[in-house]
Amino acid sequence: MAIITLTTDFGTRDGYVGAVKGVLARLAPEAALVDIAHDIPRGDIAHAAWVVAASTQEFPFGTIHLVVIDPGVGGARREVIVSIGGQWYVGPDNGVLAHVADAAYDAWAIEARTFRGRRVSPTFHGRDLFAHAAAALARGEPAADAGPPVRLAGTLPWGARAAGRGRVVHVDHYGNLITDLPASEGGEAISIAGNTLRIVKTYSDVPQNTLLAYVGSMGTIEIAVRDGRADARLDAPRGTAVVPVPAPGPYR
Amino acid sequence: MAIITLTTDFGTRDGYVGAVKGVLARLAPEAALVDIAHDIPRGDIAHAAWVVAASTQEFPFGTIHLVVIDPGVGGARREVIVSIGGQWYVGPDNGVLAHVADAAYDAWAIEARTFRGRRVSPTFHGRDLFAHAAAALARGEPAADAGPPVRLAGTLPWGARAAGRGRVVHVDHYGNLITDLPASEGGEAISIAGNTLRIVKTYSDVPQNTLLAYVGSMGTIEIAVRDGRADARLDAPRGTAVVPVPAPGPYR
Amino acid sequence: MAIITLTTDFGTRDGYVGAVKGVLARLAPEAALVDIAHDIPRGDIAHAAWVVAASTQEFPFGTIHLVVIDPGVGGARREVIVSIGGQWYVGPDNGVLAHVADAAYDAWAIEARTFRGRRVSPTFHGRDLFAHAAAALARGEPAADAGPPVRLAGTLPWGARAAGRGRVVHVDHYGNLITDLPASEGGEAISIAGNTLRIVKTYSDVPQNTLLAYVGSMGTIEIAVRDGRADARLDAPRGTAVVPVPAPGPYR
Repeated sequence: MAIITLTTDFGTRDGYVGAVKGVLARLAPEAALVDIAHDIPRGDIAHAAWVVAASTQEFPFGTIHLVVIDPGVGGARREVIVSIGGQWYVGPDNGVLAHVADAAYDAWAIEARTFRGRRVSPTFHGRDLFAHAAAALARGEPAADAGPPVRLAGTLPWGARAAGRGRVVHVDHYGNLITDLPASEGGEAISIAGNTLRIVKTYSDVPQNTLLAYVGSMGTIEIAVRDGRADARLDAPRGTAVVPVPAPGPYR
Repeated sequence: MAIITLTTDFGTRDGYVGAVKGVLARLAPEAALVDIAHDIPRGDIAHAAWVVAASTQEFPFGTIHLVVIDPGVGGARREVIVSIGGQWYVGPDNGVLAHVADAAYDAWAIEARTFRGRRVSPTFHGRDLFAHAAAALARGEPAADAGPPVRLAGTLPWGARAAGRGRVVHVDHYGNLITDLPASEGGEAISIAGNTLRIVKTYSDVPQNTLLAYVGSMGTIEIAVRDGRADARLDAPRGTAVVPVPAPGPYR
Repeated sequence: MAIITLTTDFGTRDGYVGAVKGVLARLAPEAALVDIAHDIPRGDIAHAAWVVAASTQEFPFGTIHLVVIDPGVGGARREVIVSIGGQWYVGPDNGVLAHVADAAYDAWAIEARTFRGRRVSPTFHGRDLFAHAAAALARGEPAADAGPPVRLAGTLPWGARAAGRGRVVHVDHYGNLITDLPASEGGEAISIAGNTLRIVKTYSDVPQNTLLAYVGSMGTIEIAVRDGRADARLDAPRGTAVVPVPAPGPYR
């Protein structure tokens, strides 16, 4: 039985999520529908890209991930099906797959009629196009039938990472700052926005309301405040540099 | 396998959604449960009515839609099962079905024991009554066994639409204004709240932060601000008139 | 087919819920996943405990409830599997099960490898440990294989209830105050935060914007404002005392 996951910025107070699920239930009745996140900030491609990286690769091989954060709907960005590490992705080629497409991938443009709805409204490709493509995959139609192979064009604003430095790439629901500095490059401490933080194991290793750095659940350095919000404590929006430094004294 | 969808104003931080799902899982174990929206503004019947219209009709025939926006729970409004265009609806007769019941429908009062729980608390009919009725339908019990046929009484505050004019009927999560003016009556431009807007195809047809009108995904005229919020730009709450006008000059 | 429910404070804008669901889909592919609530206020154990009480016991026997509100992740609190009244619970022993564990229960520490992931990150036990334990139960592995039997240590801040008095134990999404004063001890009226309220049947028994007390859907006394918020009207946070008193005059 196929699994189709949904990641959108449609919110949970409108009919958009339901309309997409209705199309999927109609065209791929055997598929199990799994909500990942619908409260992605409006049109925030970089936010969505991180959510996709942090969640989709846990699913069994062959899972189909529908990712509809699409501020340019109806405009020039391409619609694509992408295969990465045994997972399928369906969505606009606007950067939402930038983190997962770091690995080897295959991608196809969605052009064939069987992978698009018959009438595609210019403002709701989630319902009229991407849901049809996801359902076609779930029914077992080969991705190569969707259209010609393509290379992805979508990127994130902060470009490629240089060795030995990282950037804040995501600010989560708790106000934690997630970076792309791998644990292996993190050393004993990091510097961010004028603060030097020793790398500890977990929240309870520091006093309450204290800033800490640690190896997060994605294998990269994260910055948090124990029982508080790091995004409120530091002026460190996405893109802020994080660099390894020698260890300072212990947390006070 | 039956599908039961859920549309409520229960929010996503309490146990109410879970309690309803628990009853459904117990009484209709074969049914697939599909969340449509739980963050409908509290008691906002007109909002829910639009969400129902925008989502439920995409589902396969025979889907059961549980709609529990019920500010009058325990009061005089009737509990009903409604069949419209191959879809089933279960909920209070308070207007939440006003858009979809524009078409031909059959409706029955929910009176029989097998369609209601044994002990119905006066404040939580979602769990104690409507979930039981939805589960009975999912198990294949005939709707006519629920109670006598009825006509729906629930309406929306702005009454019937006159030909050649529309009203704002919904403000969505993005701040877009959805009207009930059909595309076929929209002409080249529309006037709303003192603004004249040419009808374009999609967001990218206008510069950023510009107001635009277009044929929305429901086939009616919508008003948006590209990468912004129309509800913040215009003083045009639900009920505001929208009328077709001759086309003005191009967008600047 | 097993059912696994999810109750977390992960929010609906990040990848955490999806990562947990991915592990469950991979390790227990037959299980149906059911969302209960993901917008539990961050780290609010007492809030989660009430949500668990209000929702989980409606599910069919054998349902597995994954409850991950875990501000002490990586610290000293124990990880447990608990069986109560035919329901399974998997989560940290920090008080989130305090209401349901009022009844007789069996509990086991989660120590065996088959019930934990191979690499457990110190900050995301939901994905790396609890999801594995829930999947093991769903696959039919005996809870006693997880680890030694234990007694639960987690408690709520306001301690045990004295007969004839109650406390506000939850403030819901609508601003209603839920107490633990059973209907059987409620009498004709209650006093809370300097107000005396006659117990009525439902919202429509009082005028709009009026405070009322009634027997709520959990069988205990609740305080609400008809079409308003009781939490904004009264200074009565969780822990506030509620006591039965003689009936006052009628509502005006």
